[in-house]
Amino acid sequence: MAQVYFKTKPDGRAVFDYYYRSNPFDGGYAIFAGLEDILEILEDFQFSSDDIAYLGQHGFTEDFLEYLANFKFQGTIYACKEGDLVFPDRPILQVEANIIEAQIIETILLNILNFQTLIATKASRIRTSAKNEILLDMGLRRAHATGGYYATRAAIIGGFDSTSNVLAASDYDIPCSGTMAHSFIQSYDDELEAFRDFARIRPKNCVFLVDTYNTLRIGVPNAIVVAKEMEERGERLLGVRLDSGDLAYLSKRTRKMLDDAGLEYVKIVASNQLDEYVIKSLKNQGASIDIYGVGTNLVTGAPDAALGGVYKMSEFNGEPRIKLSETILKVSLPHRKQVYRMFDKEGNFYGADVVVMASEKEVGVMLHPFDTTKSLNLEKLEREPLLEVVMKNGSRTMPKRSVAAIADFAKNRMNKLPDEYKRFQNPHIYKIGLSPQLKETRDRMIMEHKE
Amino acid sequence: MAQVYFKTKPDGRAVFDYYYRSNPFDGGYAIFAGLEDILEILEDFQFSSDDIAYLGQHGFTEDFLEYLANFKFQGTIYACKEGDLVFPDRPILQVEANIIEAQIIETILLNILNFQTLIATKASRIRTSAKNEILLDMGLRRAHATGGYYATRAAIIGGFDSTSNVLAASDYDIPCSGTMAHSFIQSYDDELEAFRDFARIRPKNCVFLVDTYNTLRIGVPNAIVVAKEMEERGERLLGVRLDSGDLAYLSKRTRKMLDDAGLEYVKIVASNQLDEYVIKSLKNQGASIDIYGVGTNLVTGAPDAALGGVYKMSEFNGEPRIKLSETILKVSLPHRKQVYRMFDKEGNFYGADVVVMASEKEVGVMLHPFDTTKSLNLEKLEREPLLEVVMKNGSRTMPKRSVAAIADFAKNRMNKLPDEYKRFQNPHIYKIGLSPQLKETRDRMIMEHKE
Repeated sequence: MAQVYFKTKPDGRAVFDYYYRSNPFDGGYAIFAGLEDILEILEDFQFSSDDIAYLGQHGFTEDFLEYLANFKFQGTIYACKEGDLVFPDRPILQVEANIIEAQIIETILLNILNFQTLIATKASRIRTSAKNEILLDMGLRRAHATGGYYATRAAIIGGFDSTSNVLAASDYDIPCSGTMAHSFIQSYDDELEAFRDFARIRPKNCVFLVDTYNTLRIGVPNAIVVAKEMEERGERLLGVRLDSGDLAYLSKRTRKMLDDAGLEYVKIVASNQLDEYVIKSLKNQGASIDIYGVGTNLVTGAPDAALGGVYKMSEFNGEPRIKLSETILKVSLPHRKQVYRMFDKEGNFYGADVVVMASEKEVGVMLHPFDTTKSLNLEKLEREPLLEVVMKNGSRTMPKRSVAAIADFAKNRMNKLPDEYKRFQNPHIYKIGLSPQLKETRDRMIMEHKE
Repeated sequence: MAQVYFKTKPDGRAVFDYYYRSNPFDGGYAIFAGLEDILEILEDFQFSSDDIAYLGQHGFTEDFLEYLANFKFQGTIYACKEGDLVFPDRPILQVEANIIEAQIIETILLNILNFQTLIATKASRIRTSAKNEILLDMGLRRAHATGGYYATRAAIIGGFDSTSNVLAASDYDIPCSGTMAHSFIQSYDDELEAFRDFARIRPKNCVFLVDTYNTLRIGVPNAIVVAKEMEERGERLLGVRLDSGDLAYLSKRTRKMLDDAGLEYVKIVASNQLDEYVIKSLKNQGASIDIYGVGTNLVTGAPDAALGGVYKMSEFNGEPRIKLSETILKVSLPHRKQVYRMFDKEGNFYGADVVVMASEKEVGVMLHPFDTTKSLNLEKLEREPLLEVVMKNGSRTMPKRSVAAIADFAKNRMNKLPDEYKRFQNPHIYKIGLSPQLKETRDRMIMEHKE
């Protein structure tokens, strides 16, 4: 495609929209993540001489290969803030660029944004269940190879506190933590001795895994013995970890044993195939768990495993473009656009985003995208524009934000979203409306195409 | 853990087993993948000065940091051939190494092997459905960030023919192919003109996407016009791609239209949320599809999204080790081991692997791991040892194998596996047995631990 553009319309200008069509996990929202990474990638995007040599074996012409050798993305990007809550069928990010450039970056953009948005959303759901308890990402061993690096970043944005992924922790300045494996205990003849050695050598990082032989008869009593020895040295055991069995029952019994020994400060960590549903159930049962270690279901975004975000052309050489479909629900929106979020008097989300053409100055009413009987008067609502320029002519204009700052922003936005939208079963549907002008333009284009 | 080992048992020697407990996708087997990558990673594994500086901020001692700065993996690895079929609860790979080294490589080993084995298995199931048709990986935009690179490699091992992932194609010498996007058509006022430009500039790579406006009324007729123009220039249209609507119906109608125009050679490519079940259904309906483009469900390994492979200690300083569990099914096997695969007289898999202690010379019978009434006489069966040394003292001893060679081997092995094990619903269960000596050792250790 790029070579055809190069030969036929090298100066073509296009606008592409990034959006998705249904919320992940049958939920009520998604958390947009991956923006900082994609901006960094685009600023450095180039083809190496090896790349050019490889492509040269595949029938591309010399002049096009030379173009690629000098490739630099020089487009402009409008995007929602990373960490903001986003909803289906409205632009999350728009690319305005030369058509060749806009095409070449499509795959990397979808690859990074789809995955991180999926994982940040999953993390946020787990955070909703865990309430104020600590959440630890432990998923790297089950992550999709090197994709686990980005999974960790997105997990923090969605509300996790720390990770056992040391490289991601180091690069993104994320708190790092972990416990011990069963093999550590197995390398000793005696569990007690294993705990003692660990406490002696890493006194500040002690979380004892207590289920290797028998949690309540052996593991917790051994942990208590060593915790008491640590107290004598002026140290404190951080926690014990339960990794099998009935976590609700075992955690309550373990809490009692620890408390009876005067170890109220020792935390209980639980792990083993946790997700938002298991954690919710554990809390409902009154489980006494302070820290949840979540792995597979977090970093793989199970059961969805993918967010189906798409990248559709909405303008070419200044003319609006739409993608038709058999179902009107999947028709894309023409033109470069702006999205406004509506707020109620308390500053919370009203539950409506309106999509307008970027050129529109005023919008007083939003229309349902398809149902002609539905509209919403916006006159009395506060509003906030969501799409802002983050990269201009290939250079980022938005200052860099740390993962911690993005996570703070996401948390703040989640607090503004009413609980009905956060429910796991049949969440309330956040309304996406169109300005009258945008809807008219879209409908006219559909009719023209039909003719 | 590593620092504790460093301080207390720096010369400890351990054996770890890599295995999984249940087949992915409720299937009857898995395809082992990722071995070449992990060997390459282990040969180069080291900590950079940045890594050491970061770790230095987390309370590790100077002598241990110095150890890490000089870290080199010097262990020995026994593994099945990459591409071989593997089954639950028997070692696929064993690491024999200094305990610190064996511990440090755990995460990367699980990360690479779990993911690639998952995807190779998914690809193999899709191959089973697609029979001899061409399979194209198109998943990068929905893959888990950079993990998509390894997904492509594993997809080829499992039976895919080519990929749209250009970097993986280049690095792993995999055939590369692709088609066009809807946006390409949208950049023209007229679909016919879009096809004509593409045919003129990339005549050898033409697969026209025909569903942008209307597949049968517009797209296929336009493709036929351009195919005829190409014929006049001595060129041939490769194919047309259907990406929406009822693929069974549309493919049959499209085939007839192409045939009626004398374009029997033009292939029909189909895509749109395909997996092994959809492809099987399409074939059952007599769909006329020559090439299947599979994306999301392939590269994410949906719906499983992860293979739960584990890494368990089976020997420490020459002494056997087991990991107990509440359920005997999850008890690990002690000692370094060998696995023999049984073959029938025709050279096909008999449906049984027997696990023996590596030190055993002869095994004439295999026992069910738990059911004391079940055993199998092996005297008259041919056998093949599956675990072989692939890395010795940190240097690989196994010659490098290309992805194509591994894929050939996998195909060959799949041909030896009776169809009953390849069924999607309730596949026949491949038997895993233990030698009497191994079973006795395990049972004795369980009893000792209980005491």
